[in-house]
Amino acid sequence: MSGSTFGRWFAVTNFGESHGPAIGCVIDGCPPGMALSEADIQPDLDRRKPGTSRHVTQRQEGDRVEILSGVYEGQTTGTPIALLIRNEDQRSKDYGNLLDTFRPGHADYSYWRKYGLRDPRGGGRSSARLTAPMVAAGAVAKKWLQQQYGTTVRGCMVQLGEIEIPIEDWAQTAHNPFFAATQRGLPELEAYMDALRKSGDSVGAKLRVEAQGVPPGWGAPLFDKLDAQIAYAMMGINAVKGVEIGDGFGVVAQRGSLHGDELHPDGFASNHAGGVLGGISSGQDLVVSIAIKPTSSIRLEKASINRAGEPTTVVTHGRHDPCVGIRATPIAEAMLALVLMDAALEQRAQGADVCLPISPVPASRP
Amino acid sequence: MSGSTFGRWFAVTNFGESHGPAIGCVIDGCPPGMALSEADIQPDLDRRKPGTSRHVTQRQEGDRVEILSGVYEGQTTGTPIALLIRNEDQRSKDYGNLLDTFRPGHADYSYWRKYGLRDPRGGGRSSARLTAPMVAAGAVAKKWLQQQYGTTVRGCMVQLGEIEIPIEDWAQTAHNPFFAATQRGLPELEAYMDALRKSGDSVGAKLRVEAQGVPPGWGAPLFDKLDAQIAYAMMGINAVKGVEIGDGFGVVAQRGSLHGDELHPDGFASNHAGGVLGGISSGQDLVVSIAIKPTSSIRLEKASINRAGEPTTVVTHGRHDPCVGIRATPIAEAMLALVLMDAALEQRAQGADVCLPISPVPASRP
Amino acid sequence: MSGSTFGRWFAVTNFGESHGPAIGCVIDGCPPGMALSEADIQPDLDRRKPGTSRHVTQRQEGDRVEILSGVYEGQTTGTPIALLIRNEDQRSKDYGNLLDTFRPGHADYSYWRKYGLRDPRGGGRSSARLTAPMVAAGAVAKKWLQQQYGTTVRGCMVQLGEIEIPIEDWAQTAHNPFFAATQRGLPELEAYMDALRKSGDSVGAKLRVEAQGVPPGWGAPLFDKLDAQIAYAMMGINAVKGVEIGDGFGVVAQRGSLHGDELHPDGFASNHAGGVLGGISSGQDLVVSIAIKPTSSIRLEKASINRAGEPTTVVTHGRHDPCVGIRATPIAEAMLALVLMDAALEQRAQGADVCLPISPVPASRP
Amino acid sequence: MSGSTFGRWFAVTNFGESHGPAIGCVIDGCPPGMALSEADIQPDLDRRKPGTSRHVTQRQEGDRVEILSGVYEGQTTGTPIALLIRNEDQRSKDYGNLLDTFRPGHADYSYWRKYGLRDPRGGGRSSARLTAPMVAAGAVAKKWLQQQYGTTVRGCMVQLGEIEIPIEDWAQTAHNPFFAATQRGLPELEAYMDALRKSGDSVGAKLRVEAQGVPPGWGAPLFDKLDAQIAYAMMGINAVKGVEIGDGFGVVAQRGSLHGDELHPDGFASNHAGGVLGGISSGQDLVVSIAIKPTSSIRLEKASINRAGEPTTVVTHGRHDPCVGIRATPIAEAMLALVLMDAALEQRAQGADVCLPISPVPASRP
Repeated sequence: MSGSTFGRWFAVTNFGESHGPAIGCVIDGCPPGMALSEADIQPDLDRRKPGTSRHVTQRQEGDRVEILSGVYEGQTTGTPIALLIRNEDQRSKDYGNLLDTFRPGHADYSYWRKYGLRDPRGGGRSSARLTAPMVAAGAVAKKWLQQQYGTTVRGCMVQLGEIEIPIEDWAQTAHNPFFAATQRGLPELEAYMDALRKSGDSVGAKLRVEAQGVPPGWGAPLFDKLDAQIAYAMMGINAVKGVEIGDGFGVVAQRGSLHGDELHPDGFASNHAGGVLGGISSGQDLVVSIAIKPTSSIRLEKASINRAGEPTTVVTHGRHDPCVGIRATPIAEAMLALVLMDAALEQRAQGADVCLPISPVPASRP
Repeated sequence: MSGSTFGRWFAVTNFGESHGPAIGCVIDGCPPGMALSEADIQPDLDRRKPGTSRHVTQRQEGDRVEILSGVYEGQTTGTPIALLIRNEDQRSKDYGNLLDTFRPGHADYSYWRKYGLRDPRGGGRSSARLTAPMVAAGAVAKKWLQQQYGTTVRGCMVQLGEIEIPIEDWAQTAHNPFFAATQRGLPELEAYMDALRKSGDSVGAKLRVEAQGVPPGWGAPLFDKLDAQIAYAMMGINAVKGVEIGDGFGVVAQRGSLHGDELHPDGFASNHAGGVLGGISSGQDLVVSIAIKPTSSIRLEKASINRAGEPTTVVTHGRHDPCVGIRATPIAEAMLALVLMDAALEQRAQGADVCLPISPVPASRP
Repeated sequence: MSGSTFGRWFAVTNFGESHGPAIGCVIDGCPPGMALSEADIQPDLDRRKPGTSRHVTQRQEGDRVEILSGVYEGQTTGTPIALLIRNEDQRSKDYGNLLDTFRPGHADYSYWRKYGLRDPRGGGRSSARLTAPMVAAGAVAKKWLQQQYGTTVRGCMVQLGEIEIPIEDWAQTAHNPFFAATQRGLPELEAYMDALRKSGDSVGAKLRVEAQGVPPGWGAPLFDKLDAQIAYAMMGINAVKGVEIGDGFGVVAQRGSLHGDELHPDGFASNHAGGVLGGISSGQDLVVSIAIKPTSSIRLEKASINRAGEPTTVVTHGRHDPCVGIRATPIAEAMLALVLMDAALEQRAQGADVCLPISPVPASRP
Repeated sequence: MSGSTFGRWFAVTNFGESHGPAIGCVIDGCPPGMALSEADIQPDLDRRKPGTSRHVTQRQEGDRVEILSGVYEGQTTGTPIALLIRNEDQRSKDYGNLLDTFRPGHADYSYWRKYGLRDPRGGGRSSARLTAPMVAAGAVAKKWLQQQYGTTVRGCMVQLGEIEIPIEDWAQTAHNPFFAATQRGLPELEAYMDALRKSGDSVGAKLRVEAQGVPPGWGAPLFDKLDAQIAYAMMGINAVKGVEIGDGFGVVAQRGSLHGDELHPDGFASNHAGGVLGGISSGQDLVVSIAIKPTSSIRLEKASINRAGEPTTVVTHGRHDPCVGIRATPIAEAMLALVLMDAALEQRAQGADVCLPISPVPASRP
């Protein structure tokens, strides 16, 4: 197995290339009896899909998902759910001049060293397009988590290049192309992106993803710590270079007297931990931050070599996101949902009691 | 499986509790024919073990490892290598007053919610003591990687609380208790720790771990990206709250024109990527940073609740590390080695060519 | 994961239902650089597909396979190969009267107890139609094994009901609907099947599957013994109730003085072991036998109950194979190929030497 | 991973060699809160251990098990349970003359081809001694299954060489060295074994293993069929060459009108299926038969070759079981219990309803 399956219990196997006939995934382990149709999945795909604003790639993809199996008369059957998305807008000619050259920052060189050949069309397997099936699978997980436990997942952008974006109103994330949780400063973001696009360059971003209503007890002590699985999921998203749980790198200069979240009869007094203690959920909100690198495809010239090892230069003229972080919020949400789904099933099998909760204890205090 | 096995090909199954009879691991998948004895493993265990300076816990553990299987006449046989470390200094009475209380920042509450019961002696399974078997397994991986590919792993502390520690001379990490890669500023670190210990508080730290001589082609495209596996491994270490690859969170404000590492006939011109492109090693040095939270066990009083949900307070008087980051360097090195070992075996099975390297291309330029 | 993925390194994830929109699989772990097109896969699918003789179900399915990913310009890329087969002839009305009733010998009752609901159309997930994707995946494995190691797989029917069928000429399996390795006795088999079909009843069968040119060293000592994996693969085929390796149940009354295959400088003197010693291939031919039960869908009335637990009777009028064993030969071949493919990759990663064979030793003597 | 871990949810990792310092296993995934001590495990180990009658090997091993982790104050904690058995009677000199020779029927040749070296002492990793840790793990599974579901497992010998042994009274299996479920014919078995031992030869055996009180709904549709997992488990036991579920190879000549077990309001009318329909338990008794080959170590001379490929002969004078089937009953029981344990946990996570059973339906009728 070359690592194309995510999750142990709710196992999602991803397939496809950017410019092949189709992309998709197979979900093995979805419990039976949940109502499910394409309409549950499409909205999250639409949040991620290209071409929805001038700040993202203009590639036109309907990203229409088709459920091929695992659903009978509108209900999950407990058997694998195959989800198919046909590729539509495959303008491979955009990449024609890059067949022989290793684009800086891209996977061209490393893939070639691993496999001895590569599918150069749109990055092939390394394209962020492959996150679409995960967004689809994540939508299934989100629905189940919401129905079974009232657990919800949400995400927003908290920094675009040098501009920090405050979290003021989560509802706003649906009303601007940046997934900013605020109404303020949007014109500044628009202008920033317009200037960037004009410059031919790209920029990084920082996202926040959270889960609320996570029951205590999800995760496992050693390697499958809930936060370790989140780190694995997030770092597996294209272009992510850093992951933080709770206070993240802020803990380096903290004192233990500050960091340890006190417990009171009505809940935790703070959430420096970010919702995980010893790798297992505490019932506090899960808080995750990720750093996304600037898009490697830019219109500015960079030095490189070709397969013969000879020097050359690269300029990318195809349709690209000048900030891949802009469309990454639904992806990060989906990956968090997938981690939680897996942990929920693990707990059902191996936790203290699958039916009755342990005597009530405080969960979280805002 | 409750997540106690690390790795797919070089699979290390960890067992034990802080104050049980023994801790250890079973390595399944070590290739045959490598010379191996306890002497290959003990040095790394000694680098991690408690009681080696006044800045770490004074618990006395010999941490003597015994090879129980998988080695015949000094050579690995290809069958599981079981490693056993008996616990010696189990002063469980230190924890007697904490049996019923959830210590802030510790796994007490979350374990109790997951399992309905917990081993309170020294944190039981959540103790950082369980990293010792991973250091042992990592030593086996280090030896194999060095022999087969010349790949080496090293780590150091780059920040202790507010104090940044420059990387000036890697050889120095062996000559001070902080794993600082410098001769300068050590008295300042000593004084800082003495004051901290006296205050009864604890502090966080930031570590750097690197691998050199990593062949290009290790890792996999989607979920088992090399960096995703590193993130999983690092976040699974006790107290880690953040992981960065290459420039990490520094990428947020970067431009693509800066970030993408240019290739020249004699190597890469820079290493913003930290050695991974598209989840697959590029031949550049692997560069990883991690944030370690301040120890949760402190001598200062914190509010908490007991199992009945009643308010109480907690003060910890046992033997603890005031900065768990100090002993974490060999742990992080071991986890990085384990990730690389797994990726190396995956590449042997599924890479382009298991015998002959692809025609020479540049690897790295300092 | 609910067990829809077969194999560890060459991992095939199967999806679909008998009467859903499509069936298929995703192969993760196929090495790069092998020429592959639908034309490599279709012939084995055609050997298995329904409607090819009067002795099998008359359901009409083209079973046309489409490669959705993992192949670029006719070569495998090392990334997942998704294979899609659209269902065409879904006459679900055939099953209309069985929605509420548990058919004896079928999975109706057990599925209902597991999932609380089931897809009744053609048996849903329990249909033998789900073996088609495995035949497709097996064709990929067969090609790779043949190219890399000269390893070949073949199968035939050795017993149909009471009639034993001798193995006289393997080439004949392609020229009769029974996959009989003989030219003799075919009219008797035809007459037997005609009478059986007329009677409305069904019958069992016994198949032989073999692999030739298996290098010594494939398999692993404990649980992943090559024969254990074969047993898992074969017993996972619909309707299989027994698996034998080599002399199988014949060993019960054997003496050790007979059973142990002697080695001579020019090879083994016999093959009672069936090609496996201690779970690892010996270089002898792999010899496997399986027992296939009579089809459960018959036109004769049987007693049963409905979901309310009330007594009822069942008669099946749909299109069914009166002997499912007839079409099972390509399925068993495919599953054997998949086991070998997985073992080959494991050996590449973890065997003694991935490049050079150990000094020549005898393999097998006819 | 080289296949030394059995099970997905109740994952047992086995380690050790016949004549190394110790053998044992690590159980990952045992639910918390079950009372457990060595006294729960030792009885099954004693049933399997050598030296208990003149019909088995005279090697003297106490086979005392030590629980190293996962149990606190007599209760499982949900964390890995490590079980250790020290080897005591390692008369390696018995094997001294066989170091360079491949013993017919043994794993010597295949191991050497796989690993390039091997531990020759007592067969090393290929020794049936490695079943002891599985018997220990199986005892843990048996206890949990009994407590949670009332599920029980039992086994007996049904054929010794040519002698068929009827199942008349299961209680008798505890009172004779053959695990015969009868009082009759024991002197004949004793005499048969005495003559065999005197002859220096060995013989095969056939065992039956059953589980009663298996809830319907355990297992999964495709590859992880309950019977497929049983086949994998059984064929993984040393010397097993055949596995049957229910009527096994008897189905070949059966008619469907006979084979399909009818359902009545008070239960199934028969059990040709052996307790599994479509890979999922039906609530009927699970019925499994296995064929065990004659011991390969015999005192009669056989031809072989040495590592140089030169002809030689082999005679084995060490302490061996003249019929390895005699001690195999507790092993087969343990493996069946481990399969069921795993399936039970899978069903808790992914079945229709983890708390309330579906409305009552018939299970089984004798």
